Amino acid sequence: MRVPTREGVLRAAAKVAEIVPETPLLPLHVDGKTLWCKAECLQPMGAFKLRGAWHRLTDIDASDWGAGVVAFSSGNHAQGVAWAARRLGMEATIVMPSDAPTKKLEATKALGAAVVLYNRMTESREEIASALAAERGAVLVPSFDDPWVIEGQGSVGIEIAAQMERLVGAAPERIVIPCGGGGLSAGIALACPEADIRIAEPEGWDDMARSLVAGEIVPVAPNPPFTSCDALQTLRVSPLTFGPLAAAGAKGVAVTEAEIAEAMRVAFGQLRLVVEPGGAVALAAVLAGKVPIAERTAVVLSGGNVDPAAFARVLEGAR
Amino acid sequence: MRVPTREGVLRAAAKVAEIVPETPLLPLHVDGKTLWCKAECLQPMGAFKLRGAWHRLTDIDASDWGAGVVAFSSGNHAQGVAWAARRLGMEATIVMPSDAPTKKLEATKALGAAVVLYNRMTESREEIASALAAERGAVLVPSFDDPWVIEGQGSVGIEIAAQMERLVGAAPERIVIPCGGGGLSAGIALACPEADIRIAEPEGWDDMARSLVAGEIVPVAPNPPFTSCDALQTLRVSPLTFGPLAAAGAKGVAVTEAEIAEAMRVAFGQLRLVVEPGGAVALAAVLAGKVPIAERTAVVLSGGNVDPAAFARVLEGAR
Repeated sequence: MRVPTREGVLRAAAKVAEIVPETPLLPLHVDGKTLWCKAECLQPMGAFKLRGAWHRLTDIDASDWGAGVVAFSSGNHAQGVAWAARRLGMEATIVMPSDAPTKKLEATKALGAAVVLYNRMTESREEIASALAAERGAVLVPSFDDPWVIEGQGSVGIEIAAQMERLVGAAPERIVIPCGGGGLSAGIALACPEADIRIAEPEGWDDMARSLVAGEIVPVAPNPPFTSCDALQTLRVSPLTFGPLAAAGAKGVAVTEAEIAEAMRVAFGQLRLVVEPGGAVALAAVLAGKVPIAERTAVVLSGGNVDPAAFARVLEGAR
Repeated sequence: MRVPTREGVLRAAAKVAEIVPETPLLPLHVDGKTLWCKAECLQPMGAFKLRGAWHRLTDIDASDWGAGVVAFSSGNHAQGVAWAARRLGMEATIVMPSDAPTKKLEATKALGAAVVLYNRMTESREEIASALAAERGAVLVPSFDDPWVIEGQGSVGIEIAAQMERLVGAAPERIVIPCGGGGLSAGIALACPEADIRIAEPEGWDDMARSLVAGEIVPVAPNPPFTSCDALQTLRVSPLTFGPLAAAGAKGVAVTEAEIAEAMRVAFGQLRLVVEPGGAVALAAVLAGKVPIAERTAVVLSGGNVDPAAFARVLEGAR
């Protein structure tokens, strides 16, 4: 089986650089120190996910393009795949729950994707997507359990390293990264082998952190608590994402809903950025003092797709 | 009297490029067309104002540095001058209205400036600031009525032109710009002599638009209506800002509070940017159909310093 590599990340970074300008690395002053914030929420579809989708889709053999791609997701990955497919003139079919918010369905359709609905209570999206892909000869694009997707997301790390070199003259010492399935963090671990990699997850959903401690993959415990981080609700990580993080000696922390909300308010007030809850967990971990700011520390703000009413509630909860 | 020139804008742009990375020019899709949004709200202090301040302060004779600088401003200009002064190790004193947004008062103090409050109804900030400057032998840095400040703000136009050249291979055809005193728009008019310059103002505060029609400076009529655009409440523009705009054949439009709020919601949802009301007027003008999108049209999102409660109210007013 192909595994993600640093060479793959570098190849992905070169491809991504051809289609989207690098997102800014913005300084945030925290207790007299500078924290560098990678604003992936400024990507065209509001999250880093177009990177992995682009790397995967552009590596599909030309003879297989006609069959298109299939993905399952109700959020940022769906939009990333749809965005990349439209740009390449490929057909994308996204399997989404029939009770997904109209807005998300519409956003995915607006990017030109066909949407196949399934009943979340009685059907399995993995099975539907696999069956669709098999039937059409289409490529299935998983949201994280895929070497291309991991390498593509890792291009964020290549950009951070280049930007920090320009801005402060040296490579990042520490990078703090939101973690759901681990595609982004595993890719960055491959991209930046010299950096101290820290991942952040919502409380009760910190299976990657516990897996890294255990030295083997540990799933989320049954009946996990509520989390506002819809982008990070992954029940089990994959060997493809766990492997690079374990090899890098990465460590994880869990953050609370209150810490996430505070990070969203700081991003609003100090960076003028809209960051969704799942995109704010790494910043939350630093602001809560759970990850110290080293000499050159970067955090990834991974996405900014959040419902206006939910964002307004977070702002109004400000102290 | 020294007047602002394109050569001055180019010199300012070179100086600004040494201290802050260019802000991104983000694509926004509107009715099948691409509108390029210059995200000046991502500047370190949340608005374009550090440009003019930096150009002015760095041109002060070394022998005069000791006396520091004095400015009067409702907010963003104050922060721009404070930011530039701190970076240069100069003292800055800012005269601010006692009813300025709390966030702006606090942010100015946090940047190390001394703040002198005045009553907007009964006192003249110009007189207070002039007296302070004269007393100390300090340089007065007006928010727009100053050739250096106008040239500095114009560096936005130099960046837009360079970015658009890189992104789509040609210069901007039209640039839509928020206008208070006119420093930013006059500077951009000087920077981009080939572009069609459009300025946007809040309804009832559209004195620059009416001045451009009249061919001479017309002040805001008595008892202007409420506007949320605290950054654009200028009662009379200056010959230094009117001149370049009139010479460029610029045209102006006025936008309503509802149009401004809608533009803030679009920036939130489509660009994941926090834009303050005054920073959103140019985008509002385009979205309301008051300025057509030409082949290559840029709008400036000039600032993002807005109180969380006010922003939450805008989000909750979404249709």
